[in-house]
Order: sequence, then structure tokens, then C-alpha cells
Amino acid sequence: MNNNINIAIIGLGQIGAYLYNELRNKKKKIEKKTGKKIKIVAISAKNKDKKRKFPINKNIFYNNPLQIFKNKKIDVLFECIGLSNGISKKIVETAIKKKIHVITPNKALIAKHGDYLAKLAEQNSVNLEFEASVAGGIPIIKTIKESLATNKINKVYGILNGTTNYILSEMENSNENFDRVLKKAQKLGYAEPGNPKLDLNGFDAFAKVRILSALSFNTKISKYKCIMEGIENIKLEDIKIANQLGLRVKLLGISQIINDKLFETVHPCLVSKNTYIGNVNGVMNAVITEGKPVGESILQGEGAGPGPTSSSLLSDLLSILQGNIKYPFGISSTKRKSVKTFNNDNYTNSLYLRFDVKDKQGVLSLITNRLAKYKISVKRIIQTPDKKNKKATIVIITHKTKEKNARNCLSIFKNNTNILKFPTLIRLYN
Amino acid sequence: MNNNINIAIIGLGQIGAYLYNELRNKKKKIEKKTGKKIKIVAISAKNKDKKRKFPINKNIFYNNPLQIFKNKKIDVLFECIGLSNGISKKIVETAIKKKIHVITPNKALIAKHGDYLAKLAEQNSVNLEFEASVAGGIPIIKTIKESLATNKINKVYGILNGTTNYILSEMENSNENFDRVLKKAQKLGYAEPGNPKLDLNGFDAFAKVRILSALSFNTKISKYKCIMEGIENIKLEDIKIANQLGLRVKLLGISQIINDKLFETVHPCLVSKNTYIGNVNGVMNAVITEGKPVGESILQGEGAGPGPTSSSLLSDLLSILQGNIKYPFGISSTKRKSVKTFNNDNYTNSLYLRFDVKDKQGVLSLITNRLAKYKISVKRIIQTPDKKNKKATIVIITHKTKEKNARNCLSIFKNNTNILKFPTLIRLYN
Repeated sequence: MNNNINIAIIGLGQIGAYLYNELRNKKKKIEKKTGKKIKIVAISAKNKDKKRKFPINKNIFYNNPLQIFKNKKIDVLFECIGLSNGISKKIVETAIKKKIHVITPNKALIAKHGDYLAKLAEQNSVNLEFEASVAGGIPIIKTIKESLATNKINKVYGILNGTTNYILSEMENSNENFDRVLKKAQKLGYAEPGNPKLDLNGFDAFAKVRILSALSFNTKISKYKCIMEGIENIKLEDIKIANQLGLRVKLLGISQIINDKLFETVHPCLVSKNTYIGNVNGVMNAVITEGKPVGESILQGEGAGPGPTSSSLLSDLLSILQGNIKYPFGISSTKRKSVKTFNNDNYTNSLYLRFDVKDKQGVLSLITNRLAKYKISVKRIIQTPDKKNKKATIVIITHKTKEKNARNCLSIFKNNTNILKFPTLIRLYN
Repeated sequence: MNNNINIAIIGLGQIGAYLYNELRNKKKKIEKKTGKKIKIVAISAKNKDKKRKFPINKNIFYNNPLQIFKNKKIDVLFECIGLSNGISKKIVETAIKKKIHVITPNKALIAKHGDYLAKLAEQNSVNLEFEASVAGGIPIIKTIKESLATNKINKVYGILNGTTNYILSEMENSNENFDRVLKKAQKLGYAEPGNPKLDLNGFDAFAKVRILSALSFNTKISKYKCIMEGIENIKLEDIKIANQLGLRVKLLGISQIINDKLFETVHPCLVSKNTYIGNVNGVMNAVITEGKPVGESILQGEGAGPGPTSSSLLSDLLSILQGNIKYPFGISSTKRKSVKTFNNDNYTNSLYLRFDVKDKQGVLSLITNRLAKYKISVKRIIQTPDKKNKKATIVIITHKTKEKNARNCLSIFKNNTNILKFPTLIRLYN
């Protein structure tokens, strides 16, 4: 590698613009650590004249990012657009084919096209780095790929989305409902102002789970349908009841090998307030790996925002400037196995079930009979009457039961006039 | 680097023997990840015939480790003897001069001779890696050196010694005194059976602090006298009182830059039970870094034991097999600055002071007057009489005060007949 490194940044939103500024400020530090002189020679974004926090050099601005490849010699390209298809994919693909190293925080792109792009990078002997795609500033990808490389990892899980963790923490702290807290999160820049759906419904965390699985288990990225639930249906009421039970609601992403099969999921969990994961609050992310012989490892840090994300993007840059060509997923594409997937039906948990019912005789026994029919045994029942409205809330904590049982059991409550709404189900994590 | 890698292991105690076994079991995995075939060609230890958990190949055993350099071509050497001087240093020095990469978990060696050995490694274009020297299986060194490389780190601190953390946790849990719990720790293999002093008095944690400072602040390893206190004087009584106050005793290692000066210390701290660090219990280690722009990062995991230590030793091996030559401390020795040190006298904390006194009139006012004279203002006083023995315990929590003040203020109590013992001082962490 030459001592003078030409850099292109595509996408100058929150992340791209911050990165641009960091690269300019840290030239000397990077030279000191790597011996390489970096120079930003091309930038591109949708809108050249948009007001940005950091002034950009318009002389190196390209309206069409693909034009850059024709005009400039680029050594390292940062893709900071986001989204899994369209121009992001095109740019990364083109860069790799032109033997340009690529760094991206784009989890959607890697979760969808990571296998293909990693193979392409390998064929072209360049690096494709994506530390910033999972858990922002937390070096979880390097840790799994390098520090835990000789361990047998069985499970990796955690809080992978700062937006939802902030909302859940803030609902508990402020006693305000989901909609109000979501607005607050949007105001603070923790949730997308336009469409926060991909954070809230678990999609964002799920892309990260897929990347973590591939790295932890040396497998291809899985495509199978799993249980993906977001926090849209978590009510303040559930958070309050959980609180009384010494529990807290957390949106967990979980990936594990069960009987040699891969099980990946994202859903809200009830966790004990006495556990580590129950105390990761606000916009913090945390990732926990269970490996042999290393034991349990925990990494916690800020999971989003331009600062932490830039920290990871620059660590990828340094790794490229210092090192040899590395496999994007730690081992060669030819050695990454496909893996069989665990049947969701057999996923087993204790459940928290909340029923809004008419305050009538026989309703509780209707519910418990139905549960008994599906062999779901009850650990605890909390019934709270609302005399004024002739309603009652019944909360049931069950012993462990399979997903399939729970689904079949609950299905009947859709059409029962004494059950006012389809019951809320939150799985207990243990 | 050749595709066939010859390995030597010097020292076959708990760590060395486990590593030996791991290397033999994970040959294929290592080849898959690096393309290199490893072979253990020489081992050495004090006693060839000692009973070990894993059988060793006696055909490659050397009584004199220095003989290995004459008989065998070695590519990578593991130094697993420990201690900072004598044969450990000699072996590492000789290996580096012979252009052999060295990997070691030896914190005492690195804390004492790290600057010299790093320079030597640089001159000879080999790697000197020591991930396992700090916090066992936690990849804190790689994280600081690579993942946080472009951040400005201001502080790094944590629980760096599993033995003492186990003892403190277990005293709280079991209500047993220091001596009993120490014996339990020795039985469980958490504390050295012969001489646990280096764990208990803070020396072990302090070596780790020095290594972390050098990496975090890009400085030479400091040599200055700092505040180093262990847990030998923590009484069950202190733990119980702390508990009532919502606090917990933790032995923290702390390194930070205050006004461009380096401050390093190891001492017991009272931390709130509601904090993260207050909930790292048992043999767990945790390291927290505060950097810009990444924010606060936490790494937690098993801090000792052959499994976690081997995980880090092997990650260093993979790094050597995959990568270029790297600076042991992240930047060239020529660029690592010396740093001025912060004056201990100005270290400022709230204090917990416990006095065992005669239950006589005027004793409390004697103490408070003395504190007032040194401008140490009292936040809280808890006096517990022990009528039967005509004694009393006075616990005082002070507002923040400088170390010098505290020292001078307390000095008088050495010779006061109403004060039965020199008061116990534990600093509050905040």
C-alpha cells in the first residue's frame, strides 16, 4: 500500500459529515499510528448545498458518486448512505471490483448482501469492514472476529438498538406512554423524525443479530423467518406491572446454537432488575457473548450517534492502513457453512400474559381452562378489577412453554366477547 | 512469514499447560482462520515430571529454556513463567533479539520492562503481544490500541483483580471475615495458596493500571510513586456499614489525565450499589474507558483463570499469524511521550472514616474539631455505642477533601488514648 491514501466519502448525513470532520482533524494522529498520509479526495451526497454542521470542500463534491471512480484514484471508500439496495449496494460493489477497500456502517446492506460482498472482496483482495454496523462505538465485531477467534461461541445477545432502549427506559422513568416518549425521542434525535418504524419493529436490531451470528458461528448469513417483534405494543401498563414484579422490559436480540441449529430472534423480554442486562438503560447498547473457554464477555457502550459510529469507522480505517487483507467475516467465504435453523415452534419461555377482560364471573376460569388444555401451567396470577368500567386486568406468569403451544392456545381469544383485546404476550428472559 | 509456524512455550503452570492443550486441540481452527500450520516444537518448565492436568510431550521438553534457541528454529514464543525479572526477562529479551515474536500474559514484566522490550521488538521487527496481561479474557488491550485508536481517552478504570473482587463480594454475601474468605478463595483456586500478597495489596492491579495508562495516553510506562492500597485492612464491619449506606467496597484501579498530568492509583473505593461498577461481583473484571468521541465503553468478563487467559493468548497468536508487524503499544516507541505526574496530595475525594473509640464524653467533639481544623467538612455521622465494652464506633462521611489534608488531619489520632485504633479510611468513588 502506498504511503499516501486517497479517501472518498459517499453520503454526508449525520454520520458522513461527522466522519468527514474527524478525518480532517485526525490526519496527524492517523499518520502517527500508521505511517500513512490520508487525504479526502472525493465526497458525494444527495444535496451539495444542504446546511451541514461541518463545512465541506465543494471542490471535491460529486453529484454522481459513480463518477468518482472515473475521475479519481481512490484507496479507501466510506459508504455512509444506508439502505440495503440501490445506490449503496452499487457503490460498494463497484468499489470492491475496482480494488478499493470499503468501510461501511450500513447494517442493512451487510445483513442482506454481506455474503456476496465479502466473497467479492476476497476475490479482489481488498478489505470490507463494518465494525460500525453493529452497536455503534462498541468494538463487538473485532472482538468476535479477532479477540475471541479461537473460542467456541454458543450464544450472543444483547440490547442492539438504542432508540427502543431509550423509549422503554424513559417510559419507566417518566411514567409517560409510548407515543409521548417516542415524540421525545424524535426531538432528542434518538429516533428518526420521519419514519422510526425500522427501529421500533425490531428490523434494525435483527439485521445486527444476523451479522453477529455469521461472525460468531462462522456461518453464512441466515435468511430464515424468525420471531421478530418490536416494542410498538408495549404499554405503560406492562412496564408498571413488570416493575412491581421486579422485572423490566428490554428489546433483546438473541442468536444461539441450539442442538446444532441456529436460532435468531428479536423480541421484547422481561428481565430481572437484578441482572446486568436489566440495568443497561437509555441509549446504551450492550452485547454479551458466551464462549468457551473465555466464559461470558460483556461489551457496553454508546450504540449510535455520529461520535461512537465515527470511532468505529476510523478503527476500521486504521486496521486497513496497518494490516494485511483480512476476510470480512473472519474466515474465507469458502469455509463459511450454511446452517440448519431451529424450529421457532420449539422456542421455550415463561410467558407474561396480560388480558383485558369484562369483569364477569367465569372469565378467569375460561382463561385458565384454555391454558390447561394446552398444558401451559400457571405460576402466578394477578387480577386487578376496574369496577367503574366493569373491566378487569388479568396478568398471568406461566411456567415454561413452547412457542407453538402459546400461539395455538391464545388464538381462541381473538373472538371471545369477554376478552376485550387480544392478550399481550411478553416472553421472560432467563 | 512461512506457512509452517514453530511454537515454543516456556512455563507450564496453570496457564502454560492449558495453553499447550488448547494449541494442540485448535490447530485446524487456527489453520482455517490464518492459513498457517502451527507446531509446538519446544516446551520448558521447572519440573519435567510434575503432575499436570494435560499430558505433555516430553521429547520436546527442555530443562534450560535458553537451550531452545540453540537447537530449534522458533517463530513464536509464549512466555508463561511470570515475574518481572530473572529468567522471564532473559527469555523474552533473547527471543526478540533472535527475531522471534513473543506473546506473554506477564503483567509484572510488561509493567516493569515494557518500554525497553517494546523498543527492542520494534528494532527487531517482531511483535510483542500481551493482551492476556490485563483482565484475562477481556480484549481491553486490542480495544484501546485498535478499536479506540483515534479517540482521545481521558480516563480508564475498573476492577482489575478477580481475587480481591471475589473476597469483597464473598465477605458481603457470606457475612464472614477477611481471613475466612481468603481461605475459601485459596481453596477455590482464586487466590495463590502460598503468597496471595501481590493480589491483596494492590500490586497486581497496579501493574495493569500502568499498562493501561501507557496504551490509553500514548505515554511511556510511569514509574512514579502513587497511592497503592490493597484490601487487607477492609473489615467485615466496613462492608456491613457500607451496605446500610447503599454502598459497596470495590478495589478500583484508576488512571486518568488531570490537567495534562497523569494520575494512577489502586485503592478500595466505596461505590453506590446502583452503579454499574457496584454490580460487578465475584471473580469478574471490568474495564471502563472514557473517550472522545466514543463516550463511555465498558468491557466485562472473566479476569483470570487458564481458560480466559488462553483465549487472549491465542488471539495474540492469530493477530501475529495474520498481520503485519505492529507496535507493542500502538505507536512507535520514539513517539511515546513521558508525562508529568499529578501530585497525590491534591487527589480529592469524599471519605469514609471509621473510628473505634472509648465511649467517653468529648471524644466525638475531639474528632470533629480536628476535622474542622483541616477544613474537612462532615456530611454524615453514624455513632454506634458498644456499652458492654465501653466502646463506640463512629463513622463519618466527609465532603470532598484533598489527600494531604486527610493525611495530616488523621495523623494525630495515632497517639490518642481515646482512639483505640488508627482510623480506617475508605475513599468514596464518584
